[in-house]
Amino acid sequence: MFVLGIDPGLTITGFGLVDASGPSMVTVGVVRTDRDAPLGERLRELYRDLTGIVDEFSPSAVAIERVFVNKNLQTAMAVARASGVAILVAAQAGLEVAEITPTQVKSAVCGNGAADKEQVQKMVAHRLNLKGIPQPADAADALAVALSYIQTSRYRVATGGLTA
Amino acid sequence: MFVLGIDPGLTITGFGLVDASGPSMVTVGVVRTDRDAPLGERLRELYRDLTGIVDEFSPSAVAIERVFVNKNLQTAMAVARASGVAILVAAQAGLEVAEITPTQVKSAVCGNGAADKEQVQKMVAHRLNLKGIPQPADAADALAVALSYIQTSRYRVATGGLTA
Repeated sequence: MFVLGIDPGLTITGFGLVDASGPSMVTVGVVRTDRDAPLGERLRELYRDLTGIVDEFSPSAVAIERVFVNKNLQTAMAVARASGVAILVAAQAGLEVAEITPTQVKSAVCGNGAADKEQVQKMVAHRLNLKGIPQPADAADALAVALSYIQTSRYRVATGGLTA
Repeated sequence: MFVLGIDPGLTITGFGLVDASGPSMVTVGVVRTDRDAPLGERLRELYRDLTGIVDEFSPSAVAIERVFVNKNLQTAMAVARASGVAILVAAQAGLEVAEITPTQVKSAVCGNGAADKEQVQKMVAHRLNLKGIPQPADAADALAVALSYIQTSRYRVATGGLTA
């Protein structure tokens, strides 16, 4: 089973595809949109690129990092729009979408909901047998989201809960 | 020129098409999504219905009420996602999108940025020669957004500014 992890953003959206049977990394990267383009054009680019990725790799599930509402509301709104487009793309492909909070990602990947970003990225590289941490950070974060989805699904199976 | 006004929301999105030459109302209504459906399915429904409206009526411009960040952040995030989908649909149709704040709508339609919702709706019905105020409120609000876009464009033309 391939799980597509997404770390959504309007300027840069990380994506990482993980084969749950390893787990191993299938692909990783980012989609960037032009900061100077109108908002509609940027959302259109994101939609087109994410649709292309889903079509190419046919994941079985999509896990998206949940919008973290911080003090900068404009940024939060932009992320909400980008995540909305990502969720739309997954739904149009008939895939279920899991939204995962940053704390859930940290707990699943590091066993500690208060782990820092660097610890999470190192653990992602370790778990996936990567020689280094994927760059930029958004790409590594997307792999972390996919991994935590897989981890959580296994936990649910192991404890007799529903599979994801 | 037909202007499509949109009052975005995840549960209910108002739309209203106004012929700027009257101005007169061409059509008005709302798109509802199933509260009990998964988020992805709801965004997919909204995308499909708005795309259908744009295809059917071929507006020249789309005006969308800008997300109002109030105290309920969950609602604001849901509206941001719905507006993101609406902006995406307009961009995919090659249309430019204007985002208009609630205050701008009130100023343009009533000449008073502090007008209440009821005053705005009455003025919309008056300007468009409607026998009553369209229901639900989201539909009337969408007409107000379209009207204010038209009003503002005229103002810009009249004062030698750029046309919208």
